[in-house]
Amino acid sequence: MKIEPRTLKGFRDFLPKETRKRQYVLETLKRVFESYGFEPLETPTLEYEEILAGKYGNESDKLMYRFTDNGDRQVALRYDQTVPLARVIAQYQNELPIPFKRYQIQNVWRAENTQKGRYREFLQCDADIVGSSSSLADVEIIKLVLTIYQTLNLDVTIKINDRTNLANLDKKYIAAIDKLEKIGESAVLSEMVEKGMEDVAAKRALRELQNKPQTETIAQILKSLKQMGCDMSKIQYESTLARGLDYYTGIIFETVTQGSTGSICSGGRYDNLIGMFAGRDIPAVGFGLGFDRTIEVLEEQNKIPDLSSTTKVLITNSEKAVEIVGRFRAENINSEVYLGEKDLEKQLKYADKKQIPYVVIVNENNLVLKNMTERTQEELSLEQILKKLQ
Amino acid sequence: MKIEPRTLKGFRDFLPKETRKRQYVLETLKRVFESYGFEPLETPTLEYEEILAGKYGNESDKLMYRFTDNGDRQVALRYDQTVPLARVIAQYQNELPIPFKRYQIQNVWRAENTQKGRYREFLQCDADIVGSSSSLADVEIIKLVLTIYQTLNLDVTIKINDRTNLANLDKKYIAAIDKLEKIGESAVLSEMVEKGMEDVAAKRALRELQNKPQTETIAQILKSLKQMGCDMSKIQYESTLARGLDYYTGIIFETVTQGSTGSICSGGRYDNLIGMFAGRDIPAVGFGLGFDRTIEVLEEQNKIPDLSSTTKVLITNSEKAVEIVGRFRAENINSEVYLGEKDLEKQLKYADKKQIPYVVIVNENNLVLKNMTERTQEELSLEQILKKLQ
Repeated sequence: MKIEPRTLKGFRDFLPKETRKRQYVLETLKRVFESYGFEPLETPTLEYEEILAGKYGNESDKLMYRFTDNGDRQVALRYDQTVPLARVIAQYQNELPIPFKRYQIQNVWRAENTQKGRYREFLQCDADIVGSSSSLADVEIIKLVLTIYQTLNLDVTIKINDRTNLANLDKKYIAAIDKLEKIGESAVLSEMVEKGMEDVAAKRALRELQNKPQTETIAQILKSLKQMGCDMSKIQYESTLARGLDYYTGIIFETVTQGSTGSICSGGRYDNLIGMFAGRDIPAVGFGLGFDRTIEVLEEQNKIPDLSSTTKVLITNSEKAVEIVGRFRAENINSEVYLGEKDLEKQLKYADKKQIPYVVIVNENNLVLKNMTERTQEELSLEQILKKLQ
Repeated sequence: MKIEPRTLKGFRDFLPKETRKRQYVLETLKRVFESYGFEPLETPTLEYEEILAGKYGNESDKLMYRFTDNGDRQVALRYDQTVPLARVIAQYQNELPIPFKRYQIQNVWRAENTQKGRYREFLQCDADIVGSSSSLADVEIIKLVLTIYQTLNLDVTIKINDRTNLANLDKKYIAAIDKLEKIGESAVLSEMVEKGMEDVAAKRALRELQNKPQTETIAQILKSLKQMGCDMSKIQYESTLARGLDYYTGIIFETVTQGSTGSICSGGRYDNLIGMFAGRDIPAVGFGLGFDRTIEVLEEQNKIPDLSSTTKVLITNSEKAVEIVGRFRAENINSEVYLGEKDLEKQLKYADKKQIPYVVIVNENNLVLKNMTERTQEELSLEQILKKLQ
C-alpha cells in the first residue's frame, strides 16, 4: 500500500530557505537576550498532565495535546513555557541565581482552530525575570524588547499600561475593552452591555479609563527608560490597553509595527503565578515574542538580509574535484563537489537553486571559474581561483 | 492540592550552564555542516502514525509515542529523522536541489528502557546526501565527520567497512558479529551457533570475514580521502564492522574516541529506504551523530571551552544604575543591573553564581570596579571603567 506523503493540519515542514530565515531571527534573539544577562533554559516536550492542566482555565485545557503513555502515565505536550518555568523555579530553587533571568525558545503545541492562520506547533520565545518586584525589572524587560526589534531593524512602538488602572473592572469587561482597537468604541460598549453592565455605566467606565493619568509605576518606568538613553518616541502610555489574560498584576504592554494587525510581542508583570508549585507568591515580569508574526512582518518590510547558501563555490563532478575541494577547505572557503551526474547544465542549475555564487568547471586541461551572479567566466589556475575567492 | 514539581523519567530540564554547553556544540555542528554545503531542514514533531509506523520493525514500533488527537487522527511523535526525510523528498521533489544535502537537528522520542542511561527525549543530529550513488558522496560524508570532530578538538578514529562484505550472511548472524568488539570472538561464535549455524561453519564465516580485503568501493574512498588531504591515520578499514541495522547497502562506519565505549557517530549508505514514499529507489548516504554521547566525551576530555555568563559586568541596584547600564550598552558591553535587594553580599553572590567577571559597586559618591576573578577592586570614574571594560 502506498502511503501518501503529507503533514498534519497546523504542522509545518521548514525547507532550507525558510529554516535559514528562522535561524537568523533566532540567533539575533539569543544574542540580544544574552547581552542583557538572560540565560537559556530548556524543559521537556512532555510533562505530567497534572503539571500543565488546569492552569489557564477550561478553554486552554481543551487545546492541550494529552495522552496516556506506554507506562500508563497521563502526559501532555508543552502548552506554554510559563508553567514549566514555574515548575523549574520550585524544583531547582537552590541552584538558580535569584532574580532568575531566563529566556526559553522552544516549540509549544495547541490544538487551535487552524483556519485563522494559526499553527498547532509553533515556536514560543519568552524572556522573564523571576524573583524581582522592582520596577527596574519592568524597565529592563521593556528596554530588551526595544533592543531586539532595533537589532532586527524593525521600527516598533510599545504601548504600555498599568493593570491596576483596570482593577475595579470585572475580567469579562476587561476582555471586551481588550478589543477596543480592533472593533472600536461602540462595539466594545455593546459588548459590555451585553455582558451585564448598564449602558450609562459602561460609557462612564470607558471614559474614566480613557482619562486615567499615568500611575506612579508607569511614571517611574518612563523616567528610568529616559535615563537609560531610550528613544521615548517609541513608547506610548495607553490607559485603555487591557491584555486578554487575567493573571497580570502590574504593567502590561504590547508591541506594534506598521502593517501588523495586533501585537507582535506582549507581556507584563504577573506576581501570583510563578509560585504555583513553590507554594508562595514569587514576583515575575516578562514577555512572549510572536516568532511567526515577527518573521511575517520582517518579510513584509523586506528586513531579512540575503541568506543564500553558505556554500561559496561548487566544483563540477570530476576526478580532480577531490583535490581541489581539499585545497579550498584548507583555506576555509566553503565549498562542495557536485555529487550528481556529470551533465554541466544540471550542475549549473543546482548552483542556481542553492544560490551558490561561484562554480569551478573542471575541464580535461583547464579550470574555468564561473560567476553565477554576473554570468561571466574566465579560465584561471587553481592558485588564481584560490586568491580570488579568499 | 499541592502538585509535586517533577519531570517524567527519561526527560530532562536543561538549566543555563548545561544549555550553553549544548548550544556550543550545536553551533559548531551547524557551522561545519553549512561549510560543506549541507542545508538545514526541520519537520514537525507530530506526524500521521501511518507515516512513521512499520518502517523499522516491531521493536521500534513498540517504542514509538502514539496517540489519537482531538480530531480523531492517529498520530505519533517523531521517532527518527530518516522517515520524515523520506516523506519530505517525496512531498517536495520539484522544490529541492538534487542531490539534496540536508542536516537536521531536532528532538526525537522513544519510550526506551531508561536504566541504561538512555533518554526518552533526545536530540538527534543527522546529515545525509540524498540522490547520489557516487562514492564521492561517501567520501564527503566521511570527511564531514572528521571535520566536525576536528573542529570540536576531539581526536577520533573512523572505522569503515563495506556492507557487501557481509552480503552472504543472514541478518541474525550480522547482529551477532556486530557485537564482536563488545563481547569478543568466542561469545560471538556461540551466539552464531545458538542462532542455527554449525560450529565449524561459524568459525569459517568469521575467519573469512576477518580476512576480507578492501572492496573496490572502500579502496576508491580511501584514495579520494587521501587526495583531499585527509589524515589517513584517523581512518581504519575493519572488515568485521557490521552495524546493527539491516538497511545498509554500501559503506558503513563508526566513530570512536579514547574513553568512549561504542560509537559516537555512525552511518553508511542505504539506497533502498529514502524512496519509500516516492515509490522508487533513491540512493542515500549519511550519519547520525550521538549528541549526548559526544557532549559526555567532550566533558570527560575537558574539551568544552569556558562558557560562563555572557554578562561582562553587573551594576549594583541603585538610582544611578539605570544611566550607567545605558552607557555600557551604548558601548556594546554586555551588562545588567542587579534587580533584587540592595544587600551588597547578595549581589556579589549573584555575580559569582552567574560567573560575571566584573561588578560596578555604585556608592553615594563614587564607583568601585570589582574584579570577581582576582578579587581586587579600585575606585574609578565611569569613563575609566568604560575604557577598562571595552
